[in-house]
Amino acid sequence: MLIREASESDLEEFVPLFRSIVEAGETYAYPEGLSEEEIRGLWFERPPGRTTVAVDEAGALLGSAKMGPNRPGRGSHVGTASFMVGADARGRGVGRALAEDMITWHRAQGYDGIQFNAVVETNTTAVRLWQELGFTVLATVPRAFDSRAHGRVGLHVMYLPLDGEDPT
Amino acid sequence: MLIREASESDLEEFVPLFRSIVEAGETYAYPEGLSEEEIRGLWFERPPGRTTVAVDEAGALLGSAKMGPNRPGRGSHVGTASFMVGADARGRGVGRALAEDMITWHRAQGYDGIQFNAVVETNTTAVRLWQELGFTVLATVPRAFDSRAHGRVGLHVMYLPLDGEDPT
Repeated sequence: MLIREASESDLEEFVPLFRSIVEAGETYAYPEGLSEEEIRGLWFERPPGRTTVAVDEAGALLGSAKMGPNRPGRGSHVGTASFMVGADARGRGVGRALAEDMITWHRAQGYDGIQFNAVVETNTTAVRLWQELGFTVLATVPRAFDSRAHGRVGLHVMYLPLDGEDPT
Repeated sequence: MLIREASESDLEEFVPLFRSIVEAGETYAYPEGLSEEEIRGLWFERPPGRTTVAVDEAGALLGSAKMGPNRPGRGSHVGTASFMVGADARGRGVGRALAEDMITWHRAQGYDGIQFNAVVETNTTAVRLWQELGFTVLATVPRAFDSRAHGRVGLHVMYLPLDGEDPT
């Protein structure tokens, strides 16, 4: 598996992955039925943000992450990120590899911390992974996500402080 | 004082109010130096959102609120809102009047709750007002706002559950 910066040519393979995850209705509050251009605008970040992809040995897309400032202006020293891993690629460490690269990038950029704004509490695989990487749940907004399988469940606000040292 | 829906003709008076509050550097993480068009895009909501203004007897702008779904798709049953009150109009109940109207609107629209994502902890007047209106602090993201006067201070995530009953 390789993690690299996303390029325009990754969009075609990413669009069906994005749509299948949104339509599954368990992890993201993006609207359904977005056009390719809208997905590009939502996921393919420009500086100061960044989008990465995980690909296999043959170059096929396994997953993607996007990251950057959580807020502009006087909030831009705290980062954020989002992740999508294709259904066929789960359980192979793709999310962890994307997330470790994401944390390294935030440290190198000098961010003060990383905030996840909306982690679905029933997405226990993701919650456990973020906790293993050092994130803690600061709060859970009750009933804030309408899960297809579970109905209205909480959204975690999660946070990882960064000490400013770049370990690379 | 009158609270009414904002119209295009309110933009000209709102722009300097927005800029002075952002440049003061104590309450909002919007970038400085935004154009009038950018301010329109950020503050003047289209349905399902809504923007209101508070005006005095002579029609002069005292403050404004914007509101709507906090997230799209499977998160759109939780609302959010932002408020700006001009420096000359503070201490006259303008923020409270805008907020009470905002809560009434969310109830009437059937929202499940209202989430404030980023209330600066040193903005104690606002924090106290939201608490008086029933909001609680779910969490404080540490150091997430770079206050001009206080340096890096926390951002509160605040929440008000709505019982679904419309009291109007």
